Amino acid sequence: MALQQVDYTISGKTVSYYFDAGFAYLENIVSKEKTILVTDEHLYAAQASKFEGWRTIIIKAGEEYKQQAAVDDIIRQLIELEADRNTFIVGVGGGVVTDITGYTASVYMRGLKFGFVPTTVLAMVDAAIGGKNGVDVGVYKNLVGVIKQPSFLLFDYSLLQSLPQAQWINGFAEVIKHACIRDANLFALLEQHCLDDFQQDTALMAQLIEKNVHIKTSLVAADELEQNERRLLNFGHTLGHAIENIYQLPHGHAVSIGMMAACAFSEAITGFAAADTLRIEQLIEKYQLPTSIQFDRDKVWSLLKLDKKRMSSDMNFILLKSIGEGIVHKMPLTQLQHLITERVAATMAKA
Amino acid sequence: MALQQVDYTISGKTVSYYFDAGFAYLENIVSKEKTILVTDEHLYAAQASKFEGWRTIIIKAGEEYKQQAAVDDIIRQLIELEADRNTFIVGVGGGVVTDITGYTASVYMRGLKFGFVPTTVLAMVDAAIGGKNGVDVGVYKNLVGVIKQPSFLLFDYSLLQSLPQAQWINGFAEVIKHACIRDANLFALLEQHCLDDFQQDTALMAQLIEKNVHIKTSLVAADELEQNERRLLNFGHTLGHAIENIYQLPHGHAVSIGMMAACAFSEAITGFAAADTLRIEQLIEKYQLPTSIQFDRDKVWSLLKLDKKRMSSDMNFILLKSIGEGIVHKMPLTQLQHLITERVAATMAKA
Repeated sequence: MALQQVDYTISGKTVSYYFDAGFAYLENIVSKEKTILVTDEHLYAAQASKFEGWRTIIIKAGEEYKQQAAVDDIIRQLIELEADRNTFIVGVGGGVVTDITGYTASVYMRGLKFGFVPTTVLAMVDAAIGGKNGVDVGVYKNLVGVIKQPSFLLFDYSLLQSLPQAQWINGFAEVIKHACIRDANLFALLEQHCLDDFQQDTALMAQLIEKNVHIKTSLVAADELEQNERRLLNFGHTLGHAIENIYQLPHGHAVSIGMMAACAFSEAITGFAAADTLRIEQLIEKYQLPTSIQFDRDKVWSLLKLDKKRMSSDMNFILLKSIGEGIVHKMPLTQLQHLITERVAATMAKA
Repeated sequence: MALQQVDYTISGKTVSYYFDAGFAYLENIVSKEKTILVTDEHLYAAQASKFEGWRTIIIKAGEEYKQQAAVDDIIRQLIELEADRNTFIVGVGGGVVTDITGYTASVYMRGLKFGFVPTTVLAMVDAAIGGKNGVDVGVYKNLVGVIKQPSFLLFDYSLLQSLPQAQWINGFAEVIKHACIRDANLFALLEQHCLDDFQQDTALMAQLIEKNVHIKTSLVAADELEQNERRLLNFGHTLGHAIENIYQLPHGHAVSIGMMAACAFSEAITGFAAADTLRIEQLIEKYQLPTSIQFDRDKVWSLLKLDKKRMSSDMNFILLKSIGEGIVHKMPLTQLQHLITERVAATMAKA
């Protein structure tokens, strides 16, 4: 263990990041008496010994349970455990657990303090960072929630040892995204290595996580309410979300396909080099992620329109100028429709 | 109509108060196309013409429906109405409507802008002000919620014309509370008049509402998170809440009885004059509110202990030094128990 605490300031609030800390270090951050952990049934079964001595609320595992019913269930248990204003809540798990936990803690008694122990690559580099917490409402992702920063994040890389291969791969889509929009050196590092390297070499993985945490944190801290730079994090996500919903793809798969589409649009609009699109395609493939899918253009288009209408009146699409430099591009819906027809349809929408 | 807009700053946010404005003035604050009103079935039935041309979500009337189910129901309708981030939500009603509406607006899409049109005395002088919005969880009052300020409040005093007499009386308990903790002149004004005066004289009532809005707003603006001065607003509420829950009393009745108990405690601790307790008792009676109840000491005591344990580790009890000057007094639970036995039991707990 080589604990390194870094304090970030986001909207006037200090968020402490404990890198490379063992789970047991949690006792040094919060008192066992005043703390309640929230985790999911799978993680609790796999890591039972870690939860010994901690009061723990166990929720069902899986995105399909990221609904208000889970919040209601946690609140019922918080009442039973006599949680009060001095109770500290810690979410231990992937993005579903941290999202639900952060949201519930933010509304119980109008807000208890909370922290996270992310246990997946995706949660460590992305989901647990930035304070966006909430639940889905039926098919509508993250429709209900708040933006509130956790007090701390504790990174225990040993938790990744039991992570299924599919979830490792899934998490690397967001790592590649960070490299594309913000960090050409990170992109080069990813090109030099492969997934197996990061799985074998804990120090290398630790370095990767910290770099990604820093990228996401800097974007969020500069723009907590997502008016400007934070939007870059949506690279690959606009088309990605539509495909994810329709074809029930893993999030990382959908984002990878979305990034390839955004590269094609970038070539048309910013003059992004075709050679760089190829580099990104090769990197995505190297990390065992898909670069295309045969999709129903009309279905994707209707969902995309609906999503955009619902989520914002401006159609802000994230493009690349070069590898490591993303930009926010305001685009009329008609232009997007044209691009999907011309640029994506030709390569992907063969169905 | 003599519109007078006052802008208050609470935690860096501007909250506009439109005093003495007609309901129709709402069109000048928000656009009909982008706004959705929330009201309850009774108010909608009584004031149907006012809602013409506005998209309106109607919820069930009554504190018993101030639960998550009402929030879920509003969210379902917001989705159907395709509410997006630019939608403005306006709660039109008493405290139950404004609490539920403010909370739902604060979590839908991580927060839409919202405003209130309070329609009861209680909501105008108290419930709609201060940004505490939320719902009950079973028997636990306001257990879930957020603190978030509305963008505006619109005061249309003509809405009070159809308010039942019992609700007029109920609202005046909070008016008397404001006078006791903060404003000797207001106390004198209330002594000079009676309820009927305020019901007959709209200008007098308008003046009263504005004075009370100012008192509550100044306490909230100075201490939004209730660390210090905002606590004064709990005068009469500690014992009041316990009695309200056990005996299912109207809120104003419970607060009035609670204020009398707090006067008795004040005599013992701060040297508050017995003659002033008598003045408060006479004022409460003048406004047709109760000053005592025969209660089961043990029941009240157990609920009070539980409530305090749950809500805060410090037992902060609000006392008076003089009429118009409330103070926060930190009290061990044992002292409170003693006071209830000695001071309240003698006069009220005859059961």
